Amino acid sequence: MRIIVVGATGTIGKAVAKLLATEHEVVKVASKSGDHRVDMSSKDSIENMFREVGSFDALACAAGVAHFGPLAELSDEDFQTGLSGKLMGQVNLVRVGMNYINDNGSFTLTSGVLSHQPIPGSTSISMINAGLEGFVRAAALELPRGLRINVVSPPWVKETLEALGMDSSGGMPAQQVAQAYWSSIHGTRSGVVVNARDFA
Amino acid sequence: MRIIVVGATGTIGKAVAKLLATEHEVVKVASKSGDHRVDMSSKDSIENMFREVGSFDALACAAGVAHFGPLAELSDEDFQTGLSGKLMGQVNLVRVGMNYINDNGSFTLTSGVLSHQPIPGSTSISMINAGLEGFVRAAALELPRGLRINVVSPPWVKETLEALGMDSSGGMPAQQVAQAYWSSIHGTRSGVVVNARDFA
Repeated sequence: MRIIVVGATGTIGKAVAKLLATEHEVVKVASKSGDHRVDMSSKDSIENMFREVGSFDALACAAGVAHFGPLAELSDEDFQTGLSGKLMGQVNLVRVGMNYINDNGSFTLTSGVLSHQPIPGSTSISMINAGLEGFVRAAALELPRGLRINVVSPPWVKETLEALGMDSSGGMPAQQVAQAYWSSIHGTRSGVVVNARDFA
Repeated sequence: MRIIVVGATGTIGKAVAKLLATEHEVVKVASKSGDHRVDMSSKDSIENMFREVGSFDALACAAGVAHFGPLAELSDEDFQTGLSGKLMGQVNLVRVGMNYINDNGSFTLTSGVLSHQPIPGSTSISMINAGLEGFVRAAALELPRGLRINVVSPPWVKETLEALGMDSSGGMPAQQVAQAYWSSIHGTRSGVVVNARDFA
């Protein structure tokens, strides 16, 4: 398969690209480097990326910014960044990409554990992750030509916790999280929230 | 209690206002009529509404527009209407209202069954409803001064189905749906998705 990995330079995306490359041709897409660039908050930029990349069989996205912070302190812009980046950015990868992807292809998006297990400071991220899951459940009912769509919900990632200087003992290594994306791409499921914890 | 009902002229809002008025002072807010007007898509309008209304003990919102339609046909504007209206409109009622509401007050928002039981055409609405549920789960962890927040998930409403000329036999009468809001306001739960079906 020819597989686009969006966010291929991030902690999860790098692991996903590496795992997929063992059997597939991987096209690495990111905001600032990679084979192709994309600005997730711009539908035009997304359209350009698909035009450049051409034919593909699957897309995995582990990109999209959303802000963490106390509800009383998050600004309108903080909320908007998440809505136009992580939420509509991923939704637009599907809305645009469904016109370019090969028959029987698949989209695998990324939400996160905060959707259903919030912590103080996660209002915007929890909203966006849950919204993505709602979108994926519904979009699966409409995709034509045998296309599938799932969303991976990763737990806290070990490497991310380490980078933040936090206790990483409960974190899941990115290479294990990557197996959830592999499963979504190679399986037959659609409309599913794939809990990455199941691959620990 | 003094309770604000936003969307008080809609099918559900009217029933909620009527039920609450049996024991409480109800302040009716809507986009085009009611005691006070609000444009849910404008944070300034929301701020003005709270300034006008003054002190209150609970807010129930059954307002907010989102578009139904095939994924391949929904426009950027269709998605944006739902994001700024039903999603951020309700989120902003909480972000602004938490500065005005009395101690131990409560917010009750509205999502809908399509969050977890999508149908073809519901991608935008399912995304928004699920996003609201994620927001409410997280916001409950942070609200100060004994404040609570829940979100009611109504099924298809009998009167709405009738107005659409559809088979309404499976629909739930608005006056039954209203009991879910009553339960949220009078109970002690917070961070919960209240399934209106439980009140049938």
